[in-house]
Amino acid sequence: MTQPDATHDPGLRSFVDSANLPGHDFPIQNLPFGVFRLADAEPRVGVAIGDAILDLTEAAERGMLAGLGSLIEQGCRADALNDLMALGPEAWTRLRGRLSALLGVTSDHSAAVALRPAPDVTMELPARVGDYSDFYASIHHATNVGAMFRPENPLLPNYKWVPIGYHGRSSSLVPSETPVRRPLGQLKDDQSDAPRFGPTRALDYECEVGCFIGPGNPQGQPVPIQSAGRHLFGLCLVNDWSARDIQRWEYQPLGPFLSKSFATTVSPWVVTTDALAPFRTPAANRPASDPAPLSYLFDSDDQARGGCDLQLEVWLQSEAMRRAGAMPAQVSVANFREMYWTPAQLITHHASNGCNLRPGDLLASGTVSGPTEDSLGCLLELTARGTRPLALPGGETRRFLEDGDEVILRGTCRREGAVPIGFGECRGRVIA
Amino acid sequence: MTQPDATHDPGLRSFVDSANLPGHDFPIQNLPFGVFRLADAEPRVGVAIGDAILDLTEAAERGMLAGLGSLIEQGCRADALNDLMALGPEAWTRLRGRLSALLGVTSDHSAAVALRPAPDVTMELPARVGDYSDFYASIHHATNVGAMFRPENPLLPNYKWVPIGYHGRSSSLVPSETPVRRPLGQLKDDQSDAPRFGPTRALDYECEVGCFIGPGNPQGQPVPIQSAGRHLFGLCLVNDWSARDIQRWEYQPLGPFLSKSFATTVSPWVVTTDALAPFRTPAANRPASDPAPLSYLFDSDDQARGGCDLQLEVWLQSEAMRRAGAMPAQVSVANFREMYWTPAQLITHHASNGCNLRPGDLLASGTVSGPTEDSLGCLLELTARGTRPLALPGGETRRFLEDGDEVILRGTCRREGAVPIGFGECRGRVIA
Repeated sequence: MTQPDATHDPGLRSFVDSANLPGHDFPIQNLPFGVFRLADAEPRVGVAIGDAILDLTEAAERGMLAGLGSLIEQGCRADALNDLMALGPEAWTRLRGRLSALLGVTSDHSAAVALRPAPDVTMELPARVGDYSDFYASIHHATNVGAMFRPENPLLPNYKWVPIGYHGRSSSLVPSETPVRRPLGQLKDDQSDAPRFGPTRALDYECEVGCFIGPGNPQGQPVPIQSAGRHLFGLCLVNDWSARDIQRWEYQPLGPFLSKSFATTVSPWVVTTDALAPFRTPAANRPASDPAPLSYLFDSDDQARGGCDLQLEVWLQSEAMRRAGAMPAQVSVANFREMYWTPAQLITHHASNGCNLRPGDLLASGTVSGPTEDSLGCLLELTARGTRPLALPGGETRRFLEDGDEVILRGTCRREGAVPIGFGECRGRVIA
Repeated sequence: MTQPDATHDPGLRSFVDSANLPGHDFPIQNLPFGVFRLADAEPRVGVAIGDAILDLTEAAERGMLAGLGSLIEQGCRADALNDLMALGPEAWTRLRGRLSALLGVTSDHSAAVALRPAPDVTMELPARVGDYSDFYASIHHATNVGAMFRPENPLLPNYKWVPIGYHGRSSSLVPSETPVRRPLGQLKDDQSDAPRFGPTRALDYECEVGCFIGPGNPQGQPVPIQSAGRHLFGLCLVNDWSARDIQRWEYQPLGPFLSKSFATTVSPWVVTTDALAPFRTPAANRPASDPAPLSYLFDSDDQARGGCDLQLEVWLQSEAMRRAGAMPAQVSVANFREMYWTPAQLITHHASNGCNLRPGDLLASGTVSGPTEDSLGCLLELTARGTRPLALPGGETRRFLEDGDEVILRGTCRREGAVPIGFGECRGRVIA
């Protein structure tokens, strides 16, 4: 697992002034990767630095990446991150070292010609996602939701043994800021004998963390937990929009399907494993009464450093708030370090049957909820299935999302002695 | 929906003699599409005719496809079927007419130079599958399996309303003849408190039909049932290998995951909607006590012609049988026309929430089982969960699959007054 190095030095500053502002998501210690488009040009790989984006195609063409090797240069000139993701941690660290040097205040500032102002670009999905899987790795979320659907039996007997997951829909992944159309589906009231077909009346968000896969594994060859970290390129934010009424009626016996597959929003910037090194934490404590992970899911280094101190905030702004000039309201704060399963455990479990993961595949964590009432990562939990409406500034209340509502996810890593880094935003607005 | 035309004329014969043999899967009335590779060459699109394959890149280069338009020619020169699939039914029908003329006995036989002997090639997956979804469209299968997992409640209340489905794993789709490694996973006996991790002891096949999507739909725009047929390029055979013990322990509450994602075998030849026109049947009869489909899933033409008379056979050959020179044994025969939901209903339901389907996406039907004991499409049903072992020639019995077992799926469409057409084989052998 990556250890902090010189690129994390809190004394480092960039010649891009905005990157040095206290609390900016993208200081020189972060350097997240994304894919951007300038007007009608082809998508390009870039790295966020303050309010600017370093255009890696331009950087490569101007020789700034010389000596890193042809594979890294090719990856930087691609139209998605898949090729860079495939290269593995040594290549990522080498590239990060060069980018840190190029953007540092002590450089010759020649990289300035390859900078693009962030407001001028459109952000795309970071990678071509071959397969998108979604887990259920917060025991708080699983317990809360289980209690609503199965009050007598909230946490199923497999939960503490199996990192529960299911396959999602890769075609419907959309980048941040793409409007999300309220889906139609079959809805059935308890009072009715028959379902009807219409727009969901229980549209929800789910605040999740996404893990982008680096090098893949060949089909039939599992990934040992000791090397799972080498397959993790980095993390992003994911809003797994969910139609609770469609879900409730369709999900047995094969799991959620159309209740999720209308849209899943992905944040544009992938914060790399390298950038996260200072913020790793021990895996969440399991109560002594819980079983230890089976040996294929247990590694002492993963237990010691497999968690991540990543604070996740959900913000909401309604149409009425926007019209009144009110800022988005924060509705919850949770922390990714409290998940029951680590990213390494998710990767190893996913590949344990020989399933092949490919570079650019996305594994989402499932809703990140904490143990307290203000740390619940979806409205289903936050409003106790609509029974405890959420109050918004201006007097509105919400049981579920209404048309015009915009949901904004934010993520920040902080630690004593390290420069905080952020994830940017994962943003989507509901349309009719 | 396509109607039979001159390309289905039972009097048509090909200059490729093997195509005229009675009972051959690939007469000139079939013309299924696939992707083949000659030695180490790049994959190419081809059409099966008797024991030969028409190389469409070669046919295009020699001008045999002239006048069909540049998009069709480009699609024929591609390395997968996605581009042809995207073009839609008018293009497919135009191409089919040309291929029928080129390969007919009354042609000038000039297409002979573009023929490759089938034994010389390796078959690949027909398309780059962006997303693979799997349904549960046989009510016989759903009832039988439901009775094992939930004896008191075999068919859930949503079954007759919702075409139940879930997302599968596109990375682990493999072409016919790829060996299938017995997966590891968490297994839990009823007697044990804790699961253990090891090779599945309940490996099963599932005989299914796959629907390859032609033109896609934009995200947010459902596909009306009346035009769903235009989005169906054709059908193939699918073996959805399943580890029943892994499935039983992992599947609640989010559905099957690692019990399925180690491998799914796809037959190499896609039989087109055009070729299937003579074999369309009414949708399966629903008992009068069953609810009518909701209006978004109901179309009178689909009710009249949305089924398909496709006989599906499962054959099994063990290692011992192979060594003794014994042929594979037929273990079941079912018919696709008995499915509760039609392909058009699966497509329309899948897109009803705005989920975007893309050209080359694969929708599998779920296990095709009939109402009788000899028409059950997986061992779980055929052996009543292992309690009624299957007898094989040579004295062996099977509860579930053993290493060395080879499973072969075959499909044939027959109808009075039409030349029968076949699907070729979907074949896979279990390795340790």
